[in-house]
Amino acid sequence: MLRVGVNGYGTIGKRVADAIRAQPDMVVCGVAKRSPDYVAVGAAEESYPVYAVDGERTEEFRSIGIDLAGTVDELVDESDVMVDATPSGVGADNRSLYERHDTPALFQGGEDATVAEVSFNARVNYEEATGADYARVVSCNTTGLSRFVAPIEENYGIEKARATLIRRGGDPDQTGRGPINDAVPDPVSIPSHHGPDVQTIFPDLDIDTIGLKVPTTMMHVHAVNVTLEEAPDDVSEIRDRLRAEDRLVLIPEYAGIDGAGTLKDFALDAGRPRGDIWENCIWEESLTLEGSDLYCMQAIHQESDVVPENVDALRALSGHLSGPESRSLTNETLGIGLGRLDGREDLTLDRQTAD
Amino acid sequence: MLRVGVNGYGTIGKRVADAIRAQPDMVVCGVAKRSPDYVAVGAAEESYPVYAVDGERTEEFRSIGIDLAGTVDELVDESDVMVDATPSGVGADNRSLYERHDTPALFQGGEDATVAEVSFNARVNYEEATGADYARVVSCNTTGLSRFVAPIEENYGIEKARATLIRRGGDPDQTGRGPINDAVPDPVSIPSHHGPDVQTIFPDLDIDTIGLKVPTTMMHVHAVNVTLEEAPDDVSEIRDRLRAEDRLVLIPEYAGIDGAGTLKDFALDAGRPRGDIWENCIWEESLTLEGSDLYCMQAIHQESDVVPENVDALRALSGHLSGPESRSLTNETLGIGLGRLDGREDLTLDRQTAD
Repeated sequence: MLRVGVNGYGTIGKRVADAIRAQPDMVVCGVAKRSPDYVAVGAAEESYPVYAVDGERTEEFRSIGIDLAGTVDELVDESDVMVDATPSGVGADNRSLYERHDTPALFQGGEDATVAEVSFNARVNYEEATGADYARVVSCNTTGLSRFVAPIEENYGIEKARATLIRRGGDPDQTGRGPINDAVPDPVSIPSHHGPDVQTIFPDLDIDTIGLKVPTTMMHVHAVNVTLEEAPDDVSEIRDRLRAEDRLVLIPEYAGIDGAGTLKDFALDAGRPRGDIWENCIWEESLTLEGSDLYCMQAIHQESDVVPENVDALRALSGHLSGPESRSLTNETLGIGLGRLDGREDLTLDRQTAD
Repeated sequence: MLRVGVNGYGTIGKRVADAIRAQPDMVVCGVAKRSPDYVAVGAAEESYPVYAVDGERTEEFRSIGIDLAGTVDELVDESDVMVDATPSGVGADNRSLYERHDTPALFQGGEDATVAEVSFNARVNYEEATGADYARVVSCNTTGLSRFVAPIEENYGIEKARATLIRRGGDPDQTGRGPINDAVPDPVSIPSHHGPDVQTIFPDLDIDTIGLKVPTTMMHVHAVNVTLEEAPDDVSEIRDRLRAEDRLVLIPEYAGIDGAGTLKDFALDAGRPRGDIWENCIWEESLTLEGSDLYCMQAIHQESDVVPENVDALRALSGHLSGPESRSLTNETLGIGLGRLDGREDLTLDRQTAD
């Protein structure tokens, strides 16, 4: 049983902790939290031992009914492996902490690729992280692009990939971040950092990306173009290959899912925890082949698509399952590839179109 | 066992159906749905018999794997009581359908008050609906105002109430409604219809309301002022009375819940179905007494605060439980007044403030 500590219990950390708890081969031995706020109350309610990032706030935690289990140093000491889900940049500072305790660790995609020996995507390069001490699970956007690129690259070859990332301004609890009423080039330089980040997963892929931020909080949306080396006669062949992928969902026209708002409503109706959408959501109508140019639009849930990737990365580090075994187990325990969001034939297969 | 049909399976209908299913004394005998979309798929997944609002679309439903159980006429015939959760205005048109079958029915607050003999709020006038054939559950905003007003009126008397309603533009799946980037007087005439609507619950209350729409989808926010007839010495007395109400939540400062975004994040963390918040959420810091003027701000979840009210209204019509008995049973079965959202002492009582 792999004992996992989670350092940073925010948007990603709380979701990764819950996902770990759902696995038969790993256990959450504690979570480290900086602020005694509603999220900390949630950690205590979930019965996770809570460790202090800042030891001076012990009394503040106690005043809201949370008795801390110790310091983050002690959590690292008690864990076989750490998941660092602290804010971007803090993770890199934490690496020395994990090294001091000789504890392997996962970092998130907000860190530079140099934070760890390997950048990780479960579909593409699980084996590269096997037995590593440190790995970085790439960001939500890079994860989403990599999942889409993988089957295309394998089956048709990619001459060139281009993607425009219409990024949400912040998460639903980050309404103060902006932008408001604007579409802001971010970064204004082209290519954005996302292209090179995808190349940490596909070193030989020729890809350019453009990034913007818009005043939404629900999901990122990608407009993707891939120029194929060998295009099939019909886009339906590509569609069927994408449909066979475990972490891609095709959204059929009849469903009336016209944006991230309806996608989230759908996920909540389906009983997904926190309304999370772990899969890339590709609008089926947008899948288009013009000569050798493949186009589509996909929505990426920034709060959760990396969650199953973190679970798989933990198994890669510990080395006790192969990539396919781990992905399958993660999918099954979380409910990915099951249920109405993507497993129902009537949602994922072609259907008569509603008027 | 009360057999309930739900006509209209959208934002309110799907939630009311799930809430009815959680009750020991009632059962959903079917839901009527107009469009064969993702919400219809959800109804079938939940094993609700689906009835056609529009009989001509039977084939479209079948094409997505839904075999209709019949027409809405048949559903009304088979039900002891109907919940009409169709769009505003359609409910009034449906009244003749229910009358034709001699089936009692609930309408929603989007209808004019004249649609039914009594307008209903479980806290205030449960008894008035007891044994009625038709009742209207008042709107989300009127429900939210009534719940706040009730304990204030009972304990201190109200000389005058005034409320500014900062209304969300649409629900999360209604992103096409607008406004975008504006705060729109809506209605521009003062008082808005909300004040008179509250008077359907409190006929003698002197209340004026102002309504605006803003580009949000998560919750309404009310800025409330009540001039008391007999003010207490200290606001803490009022706070304690509000805290004792079963469908009011006080949000403490330390929690870091600074808006509807964090409120929804909190509700999702707490495992609430669809992230629903059935209770008024009052920011404790905003509760202020200036002479005889009481002020506060509260958030109202437009998709769900009327859900427990619908359940209670069904029992009022059928007459088999008293108001307090029904409210208590509804609260217990849904989890209102329990759990960390409002029942935990450490969230609802005064706490040391986090820095």
